[in-house]
Amino acid sequence: GYATVDHHRAIRTGMPEVIFGKGKTTEQILGIAERLLERASNVLVTRTNEEVAGRMKALYPEAEYFPACGALRVWRDRTMHGKGPLAVISAGTTDMPVALEAVVTAEVMGNDVDQIHDVGVAGIHRLFGNLDRITKARVIVVCAGMEGALPSAVGGLVSCPVIAVPTSVGYGASFHGLAALLGMLNSCASNVSVVNIDNGFGGGYVASLINRL
Amino acid sequence: GYATVDHHRAIRTGMPEVIFGKGKTTEQILGIAERLLERASNVLVTRTNEEVAGRMKALYPEAEYFPACGALRVWRDRTMHGKGPLAVISAGTTDMPVALEAVVTAEVMGNDVDQIHDVGVAGIHRLFGNLDRITKARVIVVCAGMEGALPSAVGGLVSCPVIAVPTSVGYGASFHGLAALLGMLNSCASNVSVVNIDNGFGGGYVASLINRL
Amino acid sequence: GYATVDHHRAIRTGMPEVIFGKGKTTEQILGIAERLLERASNVLVTRTNEEVAGRMKALYPEAEYFPACGALRVWRDRTMHGKGPLAVISAGTTDMPVALEAVVTAEVMGNDVDQIHDVGVAGIHRLFGNLDRITKARVIVVCAGMEGALPSAVGGLVSCPVIAVPTSVGYGASFHGLAALLGMLNSCASNVSVVNIDNGFGGGYVASLINRL
Amino acid sequence: GYATVDHHRAIRTGMPEVIFGKGKTTEQILGIAERLLERASNVLVTRTNEEVAGRMKALYPEAEYFPACGALRVWRDRTMHGKGPLAVISAGTTDMPVALEAVVTAEVMGNDVDQIHDVGVAGIHRLFGNLDRITKARVIVVCAGMEGALPSAVGGLVSCPVIAVPTSVGYGASFHGLAALLGMLNSCASNVSVVNIDNGFGGGYVASLINRL
Amino acid sequence: GYATVDHHRAIRTGMPEVIFGKGKTTEQILGIAERLLERASNVLVTRTNEEVAGRMKALYPEAEYFPACGALRVWRDRTMHGKGPLAVISAGTTDMPVALEAVVTAEVMGNDVDQIHDVGVAGIHRLFGNLDRITKARVIVVCAGMEGALPSAVGGLVSCPVIAVPTSVGYGASFHGLAALLGMLNSCASNVSVVNIDNGFGGGYVASLINRL
Amino acid sequence: GYATVDHHRAIRTGMPEVIFGKGKTTEQILGIAERLLERASNVLVTRTNEEVAGRMKALYPEAEYFPACGALRVWRDRTMHGKGPLAVISAGTTDMPVALEAVVTAEVMGNDVDQIHDVGVAGIHRLFGNLDRITKARVIVVCAGMEGALPSAVGGLVSCPVIAVPTSVGYGASFHGLAALLGMLNSCASNVSVVNIDNGFGGGYVASLINRL
Amino acid sequence: GYATVDHHRAIRTGMPEVIFGKGKTTEQILGIAERLLERASNVLVTRTNEEVAGRMKALYPEAEYFPACGALRVWRDRTMHGKGPLAVISAGTTDMPVALEAVVTAEVMGNDVDQIHDVGVAGIHRLFGNLDRITKARVIVVCAGMEGALPSAVGGLVSCPVIAVPTSVGYGASFHGLAALLGMLNSCASNVSVVNIDNGFGGGYVASLINRL
Amino acid sequence: GYATVDHHRAIRTGMPEVIFGKGKTTEQILGIAERLLERASNVLVTRTNEEVAGRMKALYPEAEYFPACGALRVWRDRTMHGKGPLAVISAGTTDMPVALEAVVTAEVMGNDVDQIHDVGVAGIHRLFGNLDRITKARVIVVCAGMEGALPSAVGGLVSCPVIAVPTSVGYGASFHGLAALLGMLNSCASNVSVVNIDNGFGGGYVASLINRL
Ligand SMILES: Nc1ncnc2c1ncn2[C@@H]1O[C@H](COP(=O)(O)O)[C@@H](O)[C@H]1O
Ligand SMILES: Nc1ncnc2c1ncn2[C@@H]1O[C@H](COP(=O)(O)O)[C@@H](O)[C@H]1O
Ligand SMILES: Nc1ncnc2c1ncn2[C@@H]1O[C@H](COP(=O)(O)O)[C@@H](O)[C@H]1O
Ligand SMILES: Nc1ncnc2c1ncn2[C@@H]1O[C@H](COP(=O)(O)O)[C@@H](O)[C@H]1O
Ligand SMILES: [Mg+2]
Ligand SMILES: [Mg+2]
Ligand SMILES: [Mg+2]
Ligand SMILES: [Mg+2]
Ligand SMILES: [Mg+2]
Ligand SMILES: [Mg+2]
Ligand SMILES: [Mg+2]
Ligand SMILES: [Mg+2]
Repeated sequence: GYATVDHHRAIRTGMPEVIFGKGKTTEQILGIAERLLERASNVLVTRTNEEVAGRMKALYPEAEYFPACGALRVWRDRTMHGKGPLAVISAGTTDMPVALEAVVTAEVMGNDVDQIHDVGVAGIHRLFGNLDRITKARVIVVCAGMEGALPSAVGGLVSCPVIAVPTSVGYGASFHGLAALLGMLNSCASNVSVVNIDNGFGGGYVASLINRL
Repeated sequence: GYATVDHHRAIRTGMPEVIFGKGKTTEQILGIAERLLERASNVLVTRTNEEVAGRMKALYPEAEYFPACGALRVWRDRTMHGKGPLAVISAGTTDMPVALEAVVTAEVMGNDVDQIHDVGVAGIHRLFGNLDRITKARVIVVCAGMEGALPSAVGGLVSCPVIAVPTSVGYGASFHGLAALLGMLNSCASNVSVVNIDNGFGGGYVASLINRL
Repeated sequence: GYATVDHHRAIRTGMPEVIFGKGKTTEQILGIAERLLERASNVLVTRTNEEVAGRMKALYPEAEYFPACGALRVWRDRTMHGKGPLAVISAGTTDMPVALEAVVTAEVMGNDVDQIHDVGVAGIHRLFGNLDRITKARVIVVCAGMEGALPSAVGGLVSCPVIAVPTSVGYGASFHGLAALLGMLNSCASNVSVVNIDNGFGGGYVASLINRL
Repeated sequence: GYATVDHHRAIRTGMPEVIFGKGKTTEQILGIAERLLERASNVLVTRTNEEVAGRMKALYPEAEYFPACGALRVWRDRTMHGKGPLAVISAGTTDMPVALEAVVTAEVMGNDVDQIHDVGVAGIHRLFGNLDRITKARVIVVCAGMEGALPSAVGGLVSCPVIAVPTSVGYGASFHGLAALLGMLNSCASNVSVVNIDNGFGGGYVASLINRL
Repeated sequence: GYATVDHHRAIRTGMPEVIFGKGKTTEQILGIAERLLERASNVLVTRTNEEVAGRMKALYPEAEYFPACGALRVWRDRTMHGKGPLAVISAGTTDMPVALEAVVTAEVMGNDVDQIHDVGVAGIHRLFGNLDRITKARVIVVCAGMEGALPSAVGGLVSCPVIAVPTSVGYGASFHGLAALLGMLNSCASNVSVVNIDNGFGGGYVASLINRL
Repeated sequence: GYATVDHHRAIRTGMPEVIFGKGKTTEQILGIAERLLERASNVLVTRTNEEVAGRMKALYPEAEYFPACGALRVWRDRTMHGKGPLAVISAGTTDMPVALEAVVTAEVMGNDVDQIHDVGVAGIHRLFGNLDRITKARVIVVCAGMEGALPSAVGGLVSCPVIAVPTSVGYGASFHGLAALLGMLNSCASNVSVVNIDNGFGGGYVASLINRL
Repeated sequence: GYATVDHHRAIRTGMPEVIFGKGKTTEQILGIAERLLERASNVLVTRTNEEVAGRMKALYPEAEYFPACGALRVWRDRTMHGKGPLAVISAGTTDMPVALEAVVTAEVMGNDVDQIHDVGVAGIHRLFGNLDRITKARVIVVCAGMEGALPSAVGGLVSCPVIAVPTSVGYGASFHGLAALLGMLNSCASNVSVVNIDNGFGGGYVASLINRL
Repeated sequence: GYATVDHHRAIRTGMPEVIFGKGKTTEQILGIAERLLERASNVLVTRTNEEVAGRMKALYPEAEYFPACGALRVWRDRTMHGKGPLAVISAGTTDMPVALEAVVTAEVMGNDVDQIHDVGVAGIHRLFGNLDRITKARVIVVCAGMEGALPSAVGGLVSCPVIAVPTSVGYGASFHGLAALLGMLNSCASNVSVVNIDNGFGGGYVASLINRL
């Protein structure tokens, strides 16, 4: 067999089992998922495709597939673990796949997710129009590409932790998300920490852990 | 006048006022600090020097200066805000200045800080020797330079959030902390988020916010 | 002799003669300045030092030296060429030397300069507190380091051209201004164009040309 | 719905509404365009394709599609806003798609655009052969790939603002436009500012704003 | 003819002849292989494909093809040259193609290869579960992508030489293996040296040379 | 106390204890060294200075200091562990400090070291003039800056393992050793593996481990 | 029309007209070629394809197409301009397309070209086996990918000018030819100058100019 | 002894012996120079300093030192080897040290050097004012920093070989000469080849070799 499966963590913490789909064959993903689902209630597969989704749905009719971001979710135990609203904010329409990966992750980890999209820094009034929802959140995930300035703007408006997810949206000197990543790492807002480019999963995961505290 | 001072946030949240000392003159720092201390109980100055420290101590005898990292602290209101132990872990002796900046920050923000130093990945048994303290923490800051592998190792051992602080410790292909930064951003542990290179302040700050939740 | 002096442009356009001081010896700068000042009313020397300033003041008592940015100015013909207010905005206290170079340049080119400092993105309310002055400007220079997000925020509030000047302020993953530069080049505000890192001169110069139109 | 639409700016300023097509589905673009065209006279879609163009033309027969650069334009209100000629200059045949994006943008923003193509620095006599047209322009957009030297050469010949657009034309050490971008940022001509690689739209937009002043 | 074939080294040392398949046509590879196999017992082709494999198997039925990594092997002389166990360790399922290239190479060079897969740093207990096999090895090849921390962890547990092979597994700030490469070059374990990204062949080759000593 | 000292490895393997001096205070280095020398025969301090050397010599008269590379050695147990000659080769006069660090390391680890200097690729006849010594070596460390081509040339002449150490010697596009590092990682010689830029210690250490086998 | 054609240079110097095919449509290439061939004897098209080749051959039966590098040549005036042998040397089989572009260019510019292939640095004896031919050359073009060490080795053996052409051959840390480029720029041989990655045309062109002197 | 001295090349070709001074001690340079001057007529030391110059002049009164670039020359055999004028052109006053290194090198290699300074691209008329001298040259060295556009402009005006020397003059996004280097490598002029950043020596050397042909 291939991947050594470690059930204990999931059982212990009530967290979903997660399979990173990229670079794995359909058979590998299905094999791992089946073994996991013998014991785990919830399984999340990220970066997968229609073929895997079809095969999974045949086996587990409750499986949900999110084609915009390639996430696949078996969400059987829907216990809420988050202690308050977890917001996922995105800058532009094209950042939504990454934001969706964060949303799908945070939901399957037992959070009530509030989504706020298309509120980029160049139209800062749109951010202010959602100030109520933003300040209500206990923890916030912010997804932005291009110059990646949104986490700083959000971070300056709230006093809760902000997880910044740079996206590879952009072209030219965005260098596939590098500009956004560097911007976020240099955020002048002190409440910002950062995960990998396009890592909506990581953003949703870290925020979910924080929201359980 | 120079920097516009914003008291409201500090008063509202019980957080310290913070002055980023790098690039400011002694007079600028003293001027800002004096105005802040008229109303705020606690003030933290990062990246400052002996000269500023001497001048501040003359005015505020309770001021503490930490020469290893250049932090200066007026810590009058010592209310605890953290809801559990906050651990600061560092990989090598030379990462300690950055770790110290995190410790000083987390303390002045009202945390009980547990320090664990010199437990780099190449001597992984030293990490395991501290497993009890590590698993007890509610949130962890991990400072490491060179290959920056320690946050992944720590992250795999705990289920709490881990804030990774890459340090510029190293030479050659460490490229002033870039190697550690990239390593941490690509961490295979899902509970890791990252702040800027050498940003011990940011690590301590984000961890403190999380520990209040 | 060294540098070939070209008077014609200055005479034709009423623009100052400019000497880039960095890398030139005191004697070289003085020699060029003297020849220029035989015919030109106004001369600007950038990136120079106290020694040159002292020597110049001895020869031209009206010379002004700005130690914070190293600019030296002989401003004899004070005709206004700008057709409206030209704003220079900076994000943090440490960005002020670059902003000052822009101010000194725009003034010697005949502009009424409105300076707005310390209005970084993480305290976006400070930007809004100056909305009147900002929207009155005919053209705006915005100087910011770290994540360089301020030009996008400003750009989204106005419909005039914004010249963004990234500064090398920051540390770690700011990579000496690269983070700010990339952020500005990827600005989601369409009215933003960019000059070199720390090029306050360039920002002030381009804005002055625009303000003459 | 997806993108929050903001009519006010367009109505206020007489500027076109702009949709960045890259990364949006056909349905998304059509949906946004329809809502915009209920109130706005002019709409510009950049980085789109034949399919969107066909669908748009069926709905709005006056829509023009420019396959070389993927721009789509509904240009109903043809009021001139530019106060003089706006020149768009390109270095080589392969830079023309980017130059075309600038032209289409500047036209729909109400400018009389003078196009000068294939006048790269290695054949500098071709630039001089167009000196009359170049010096007549009130503002100039210069598109160039490879070493990106053309904006400096043009900038040295005129005293108006020059917006430099680096293109990704080239191979090897052009690093997808990085060489041209760096060249332009380091221009020894003081009247040059820069937008993102391949951002013909940004070049045309900034130049149009300047030309209204 | 194309490639100049040099038999002498192989004959002298008992090492296989190696053809780097990438960028060569099917005819080129077959031509070189045929000439080599007139005199050499063993030939290894790396980075090749099904078409070459089919053609080779028709000519040499004993040829083995490994589709996961594109290696093709004619292994006729199976003399053991390694003086002890050579371990190939990989971090994740998706690093296995690179690990397989190392295994195939080390085997054809006469080693008894012990494979240990899916023991990444975030699940460090899996590494410890294999401590016996790891400490028995005379030389170890470690393949890892993303943050590339596994070689340091392994290196700290053993006193034999460790050859680290960074893989291009990952996304975003992995920059196609750069993060893993830099991590490994900065390893705090002194027994680690590094080969090119995805160079499983190089890792297996260097380890095999060492294991003959 | 600072650094946790781990005697066991040294006692077990007969390897020296090593202290990386860079970034440690004189007191820290002396403190660690004293504790180590209570039980260990041999101690190596790298990247240290005259001051530490003087203090150490006062305590341990047998200590040797190598100012060209900053290494300090207490070498009491001179047992040979290497099973054959270990060669250290350098390309140019200015690469010698790095080569010396490798030599000092390999000696204190019990090797008979053969030094061959100033045999860079542009004078390839000098390499050939030493062919006898080169082919006699059981393992070779090659130190080179600038284009870093020497390890490939050496690697093509021998069938033993070659450890390549890129040096930061050079200027301009050497980018502080990056050019040499990349060259060595892309070596067309299969027997080459690489350590960090200027890491003479690492080169000597890995080679010494190999030479014990 | 598109490209402004400049006959004068070709007529004056007897050099071929050159069309860079990449990024141009078939119609554009044919149009330019036809106009050029009305007056010029020789035309070279680089980076083109079978379709253009077929169309050109239909019009100009003497046209030669080189599919390995995409060059197309109409070579009617075969006057020799080179004053001695011009050598084109390549390191590996996969560097041959770039070398071929250099050969095709040098031939159409009137040179007697001596081709020496597959003589990479790791098999330095193959280079020495061709020492006679190499030292006879009046000017040499050297094409190499991966570590790009061959120009230094060749440069050290001859006293004529060497034009180094880095190729994008390699993978991983070759970074699409960057490693080879940096290696060549840092060559320790003083007679080496460098052109762009994969620019076989540039190498052949510069060498041809030199060989006319 | 240190550096192995190789007289043969110099004697054979009439070229000077060259010592690269950077990173060598005064004693090392003097030692090498003395041995070389026993047999060689001409010696050039680059990147050295006043101290070495003083010591050399005491021993060889004919030694000339050029403090602007740190070159030191013993030029006893002044035979002309160049077959025509060799031009050295520089863009700005601050590029002159690099240009001077090229001049000193070309002179000691027996060339009649024509120097043309301060003719940067932004003042292209200054280049045209020297068209006569430029077109008379048999080979040209062009030194430029910042955007490095001058070699393209010169290359387009002449049909002789142009050696481009990027300089580290500039700041910010010049990245210590990288912008100029990339610009020159991507030159749209076909007669341009490039040496390392600030390598005036290399430019002068290659041009001298060409001028002997
Ligand atoms: N070491 C540090 N690194 C990054 N940000 C810091 C640091 N120290 C303070 N800051 C931030 O800088 C802000 C104060 O900046 P300033 O107004 O320039 O003094 C604080 O509110 C913090 O957010
Ligand atoms: N701080 C600056 N950054 C960039 N360019 C500058 C700066 N100051 C002056 N310049 C330019 O440098 C030119 C003068 O250069 P120079 O002849 O070397 O003194 C001026 O015409 C300006 O275009
Ligand atoms: N996957 C690989 N990566 C790097 N080098 C390789 C690889 N496979 C083979 N080689 C090297 O390529 C050489 C053969 O190259 P070639 O003559 O181009 O087939 C072998 O001797 C090996 O040194
Ligand atoms: N400024 C320079 N930049 C690059 N290479 C140089 C320079 N000066 C001298 N060299 C080269 O360095 C060699 C001498 O190196 P070395 O033996 O270390 O003194 C000469 O033969 C030149 O090829
Ligand atoms: Mg922060
Ligand atoms: Mg993570
Ligand atoms: Mg823009
Ligand atoms: Mg400029
Ligand atoms: Mg190591
Ligand atoms: Mg190798
Ligand atoms: Mg050279
Ligand atoms: Mg060229």
